[in-house]
Amino acid sequence: MPLLLHYPLCPHSRFVRLILAELGVDAELIEERAFDRRPEFLALDAAGRTPVFVDDDETIVPSAVIAEYLDETYGAGRGAQRLLPTETQARIETRRLVDWFNVKFFEEVTGWLVTEKVYKRFSPQGGAPDMDLVRVARANIRHHMRYIGHLTSHRNWLAGDRLSYADFAAAAHLSCADYLGDVPWEEDEAAKHWYQRVKSRPAFRSLLADRAPGMAPGPFYALLDF
Amino acid sequence: MPLLLHYPLCPHSRFVRLILAELGVDAELIEERAFDRRPEFLALDAAGRTPVFVDDDETIVPSAVIAEYLDETYGAGRGAQRLLPTETQARIETRRLVDWFNVKFFEEVTGWLVTEKVYKRFSPQGGAPDMDLVRVARANIRHHMRYIGHLTSHRNWLAGDRLSYADFAAAAHLSCADYLGDVPWEEDEAAKHWYQRVKSRPAFRSLLADRAPGMAPGPFYALLDF
Repeated sequence: MPLLLHYPLCPHSRFVRLILAELGVDAELIEERAFDRRPEFLALDAAGRTPVFVDDDETIVPSAVIAEYLDETYGAGRGAQRLLPTETQARIETRRLVDWFNVKFFEEVTGWLVTEKVYKRFSPQGGAPDMDLVRVARANIRHHMRYIGHLTSHRNWLAGDRLSYADFAAAAHLSCADYLGDVPWEEDEAAKHWYQRVKSRPAFRSLLADRAPGMAPGPFYALLDF
Repeated sequence: MPLLLHYPLCPHSRFVRLILAELGVDAELIEERAFDRRPEFLALDAAGRTPVFVDDDETIVPSAVIAEYLDETYGAGRGAQRLLPTETQARIETRRLVDWFNVKFFEEVTGWLVTEKVYKRFSPQGGAPDMDLVRVARANIRHHMRYIGHLTSHRNWLAGDRLSYADFAAAAHLSCADYLGDVPWEEDEAAKHWYQRVKSRPAFRSLLADRAPGMAPGPFYALLDF
């Protein structure tokens, strides 16, 4: 059985968990605290970041590469339901948005939120969260909410007519911010409605059941209608 | 003709220029100072980052997505010479290393060097370079030189037996640091020999001819035997 080393509030791990669930790939999930820098973990991935996927004796990192691998192996038979579409324009747009959330949104929002509020709490080298950085993330997320709203008011799903990796990348990151109570849902109606639709998918269920020790999720986290 | 909006000392732009040259794709190169935040440029790419590639009425960003696109359109007929190999294990390793340099190396090395030494110099909101950040980048690059040396002492090229996108991603970033005189070539012999081989390829020539106004390149920049 494939193996996923993940961390519950790591947005990149959540992106891969959503894809696995949507594709119906059974994988064993093992929690990895990357901040502990376990030598056996660093031997698997020199970058020392979650998630790490192990399948068929191959170690696959980081999340964007895992997504490409899963599409090429488990996704290829899905035809029009493929999460990385086959048409050139749709591939470009899907991959652009996956990168947008996994790189840009992470740099501007989830990287700060998760590092300051979660990793610092549980890491031995932790400390109090730097609330200035948290406030920067909370300001930045508003632009992204409007961008999601702009896209989804013109399109059925984030990258176009069909559900794709772009929806799962965006929702993975938003779900972490939502757990921490840091998504301004009032900012954009279209963005909120799009998220409700993604959140209602069965693939989302295991994420909504996650609980970090001593940290209750935000008020809307597990509600499908919020 | 395809169009590449690029910046000469942007490592992500250089990655795409190397691929275009290696694949023999003629493209018109237009210099874009992303830090000027030109409205017409932001309309093409909401993220506002170089490079932006325009081909066949499609706008393609960022560099990792351009690389996938170029492989699928111009690279597909190259068989064993394909720069994104077709075998599963080689694809995983090539993509992992492309991400390593475009994300991790950029975060730890070239992002600091280029922002502090180049963008601040030419941007209207610039200022003096923060030499503490430059020193962090100079310390970090040593680990990466040893990692490149470790990989290339076991392998013909960075990701395996054949030249691939991984070599061009790594060389694109190193070439920017080298322009700025910040590559410790004495750190690892194998890394230096590998770079000499990549640098000797005809695809590299246009990069070696780049000159930033008022900034002479480092002493080894244009030498093939250094």
